[in-house]
Amino acid sequence: MAEKTTEELEQLRDLIDGVDQQLLHLLRKRLDLVAQVGAVKHGAGLPIYAPEREAAMLAKRRAEAEAIGIQPQLIEDVLRRLMRESYLNEKDVGFKQVREDLGKVVIVGGEGQLGKLFGQMLNLSGYQVVSLDKDDWQQADALLDGAGMVIVSVPIAVTCEVIREKLSSLPEHCILADLTSIKSAPLTAMMEAHKGPVVGLHPMFGPDVGSLAKQVVVVCHGRGQQHYQWLLEQITIWGARVVEAEAPQHDKAMQFVQAMRHFCTFVYGFNLCNEGVDMESLLQFSSPIYRLELAMVGRLFAQNPELYADIIFAQKDSFGVISHYLENFTKALTLIEQQDRAGFIAEFERVSQWFGELAPQFRNESRAMLQSVNDLKSH
Amino acid sequence: MAEKTTEELEQLRDLIDGVDQQLLHLLRKRLDLVAQVGAVKHGAGLPIYAPEREAAMLAKRRAEAEAIGIQPQLIEDVLRRLMRESYLNEKDVGFKQVREDLGKVVIVGGEGQLGKLFGQMLNLSGYQVVSLDKDDWQQADALLDGAGMVIVSVPIAVTCEVIREKLSSLPEHCILADLTSIKSAPLTAMMEAHKGPVVGLHPMFGPDVGSLAKQVVVVCHGRGQQHYQWLLEQITIWGARVVEAEAPQHDKAMQFVQAMRHFCTFVYGFNLCNEGVDMESLLQFSSPIYRLELAMVGRLFAQNPELYADIIFAQKDSFGVISHYLENFTKALTLIEQQDRAGFIAEFERVSQWFGELAPQFRNESRAMLQSVNDLKSH
Repeated sequence: MAEKTTEELEQLRDLIDGVDQQLLHLLRKRLDLVAQVGAVKHGAGLPIYAPEREAAMLAKRRAEAEAIGIQPQLIEDVLRRLMRESYLNEKDVGFKQVREDLGKVVIVGGEGQLGKLFGQMLNLSGYQVVSLDKDDWQQADALLDGAGMVIVSVPIAVTCEVIREKLSSLPEHCILADLTSIKSAPLTAMMEAHKGPVVGLHPMFGPDVGSLAKQVVVVCHGRGQQHYQWLLEQITIWGARVVEAEAPQHDKAMQFVQAMRHFCTFVYGFNLCNEGVDMESLLQFSSPIYRLELAMVGRLFAQNPELYADIIFAQKDSFGVISHYLENFTKALTLIEQQDRAGFIAEFERVSQWFGELAPQFRNESRAMLQSVNDLKSH
Repeated sequence: MAEKTTEELEQLRDLIDGVDQQLLHLLRKRLDLVAQVGAVKHGAGLPIYAPEREAAMLAKRRAEAEAIGIQPQLIEDVLRRLMRESYLNEKDVGFKQVREDLGKVVIVGGEGQLGKLFGQMLNLSGYQVVSLDKDDWQQADALLDGAGMVIVSVPIAVTCEVIREKLSSLPEHCILADLTSIKSAPLTAMMEAHKGPVVGLHPMFGPDVGSLAKQVVVVCHGRGQQHYQWLLEQITIWGARVVEAEAPQHDKAMQFVQAMRHFCTFVYGFNLCNEGVDMESLLQFSSPIYRLELAMVGRLFAQNPELYADIIFAQKDSFGVISHYLENFTKALTLIEQQDRAGFIAEFERVSQWFGELAPQFRNESRAMLQSVNDLKSH
């Protein structure tokens, strides 16, 4: 490299260093201000995530960016990343307690990942939380004594059994809730075992989310909503969105959203393994989109097999849903076997029609995602 | 809301507005400085993407962030987003021309998306580019006259035919290259049709990437590398990474990376459509990870069916690869049918073993991706 070039580059890099110093201090300042907003909201019991306000603020910033020749999407992306950081920091402040006279919350399976997360959130909101895990049943009476709410968060395979055998003599004022990923059977079990308020919840996220902001919690009402309405408000204050559903409709959707999907992901990895594919050369040739797909498959196998077995084996009907998938796979494969290119294109177009407006919407959404993924690549 | 709360929130929001103004101006300043770096590099013919420099700079910033109580990942993410913006802006400056005495570049299929992208990149690097599309064959002699390089970028189904029938009398000094997503057959066709330098390229990205920074281009050498080495350097200057491969090894990997994968994605959509699934309720219940997966499926159907038919039908062997997948699917489904939970867990653990270190690595990678995806969610 010519000496002059080296010198010019060094000078510019010094200037960039200086700008980055200012940038760091500005980020620090913004995080502090947002933390103050959080503290005020906390005092007033307002939710940490306010979609309309956020949208209005972003629209304003986009316009300001454009005025000085910056792509609006750039400032939006930077601010969204900052907002994520602020949501995470909310946890340090704690959350407003919606119901102060509840008494103790007992989490059955409180040492599991999801039980722990809910325990932590309730704790941060001022509730007294105790865990009742599988080795604690001998002290169950003492632990359950004075409970205002019992939350069941045990593996699906034993949820109904635990409810029926262990929780049939709670006092009538006590709220009984569960966090299982299917809803019909646990809800029925809770309604039968308990005479008081009953509610089924399904948090639609893994226990490794940093914050509940923007996450979804499905609620299936059991009995006595007026007695647990505060809990739904509490969840909203944590930043999550509460979506109401009927248990059978929820369970039907879960056959696709969970059972079939996890099964397909499992088979994808199972197939790569059985075929003895050379992962290194696959990764070498990977575009960002394929690397993302492989990562989505690989991440499954870094997790607990029991958890996925639970989900896949939870509903007997899932076998039917997966069998239909297999039939459709076979049907489509026939097109390849018969080298029926025209037939393939016709089916492709039919499915496109069916997706309708969602297909281009998904294309745009995934483009933004893929760009973020590409940003993460370091070589 | 209490008046005092409203007032406090408004004051804080005014302060945040002020910080954001400063932030915008700082971003503008940084983009300008990086553009100046780009101009200096352009003059000196240095690649726009320098992985080691980037890593060193990020490490420094992370340490500085930590010193003032900012999560290192926050500044890294913000800077990566800014770097993406800078890469995009490089296009406005243009790129250094590695070989100045080449003569004309003719892109056969220059009106296709990928042909257009390469034409644009070559143009921005000072080359004279002409397109020879399917309606231009009558003027082929005039268009090809004086060409220093001919790049074939037509649908896979006709690539070999076009090479054999139309490009067998190029002058010996002319470079013949192709951009097809399989390499063995086109490379053989080029070697037979042309006596001069031959090189097979496969850009591992869609034509909608904004910038080539960090993308991968696979190169399969044909003949006379010394004559086209400049082209590989040129691609590196655009920011992409050139990965060398043997054509058969590349094609084998593509049966998984492209044919099988696109086919599975197709079947996923085909199945949702045939089952008449209620997309709205699926989306309502979607966690970020599932929404991302649906978006990856839906995006396929927003694209050209011909393109996917080309990829899936390109290699006869792909049928075998997909059939094996079907066999493995059936095998795994038997475990569900027989309610063999223990068998499922055993297979799961075997696959985990096979993924080895990659599984936890993928989990961490996908966590970062999923967090970006969640940032994008606006309700």
